[in-house]
Amino acid sequence: MATQMPEKLTDAQKQLFLDKNFAFVATTCPDGYPHVSPVWIDFEDDYILMNTAKDRVKERNLRRDPKVAVSIYDSSDPYKMVAVQGTAVEMTTEGADEHIDKLARKYRGWDEYPAKVDRVLVKIRPERVATMGL
Amino acid sequence: MATQMPEKLTDAQKQLFLDKNFAFVATTCPDGYPHVSPVWIDFEDDYILMNTAKDRVKERNLRRDPKVAVSIYDSSDPYKMVAVQGTAVEMTTEGADEHIDKLARKYRGWDEYPAKVDRVLVKIRPERVATMGL
Repeated sequence: MATQMPEKLTDAQKQLFLDKNFAFVATTCPDGYPHVSPVWIDFEDDYILMNTAKDRVKERNLRRDPKVAVSIYDSSDPYKMVAVQGTAVEMTTEGADEHIDKLARKYRGWDEYPAKVDRVLVKIRPERVATMGL
Repeated sequence: MATQMPEKLTDAQKQLFLDKNFAFVATTCPDGYPHVSPVWIDFEDDYILMNTAKDRVKERNLRRDPKVAVSIYDSSDPYKMVAVQGTAVEMTTEGADEHIDKLARKYRGWDEYPAKVDRVLVKIRPERVATMGL
């Protein structure tokens, strides 16, 4: 099977992930319940980047089932939004500490994230994109 | 089986749903992908109330699988948040038009919602509640 290419987002859609907006990431728990919570988010080379930690609910869920949904709106205009469905195609500790520092600068203005334990960088391939107001 | 009681939210947690914050609601698609998107939201008598329309993705998903997750943060302080998992215990057209008018007043300041077609009021029973900053 050929590697699936990511569905491309428009520049305006990408910008929502690059700006200081929170995203909501949904995964599936072992008992079939969806789980959703707000996260810091990033976008690079057509992929959504999320940073979590080993054994968090989201991390455990994605290791078992990489199907994921991400939704985000413009905090200055919540009627501009994107809802993405896709797959966590990579989960790695490599570069994860540097990446959470980058997010801490973006969201908090901190030089670095204060307590980096078992950080995991998650690369999400967009496969379906729904949008409103963009 | 006895009817399961809702997990009670604290007043501060409830207030997030009563204030003019958007919630993100996650459901499960037929192919097993989670789906998440922002919605107007309400809270009444220990239940989360959402208003959707017949045959929307969320409505179809919940008719097939009522397991649902809802997350919300305080728009003036996103580090105050609640993530709920629960069940859509009721989906009804009864009172749904009046309820979407109530939400249109809350979120838009409109007297009424302009195009009410097949509105569905969804009553969500909280079963697990995770929180941060509250």
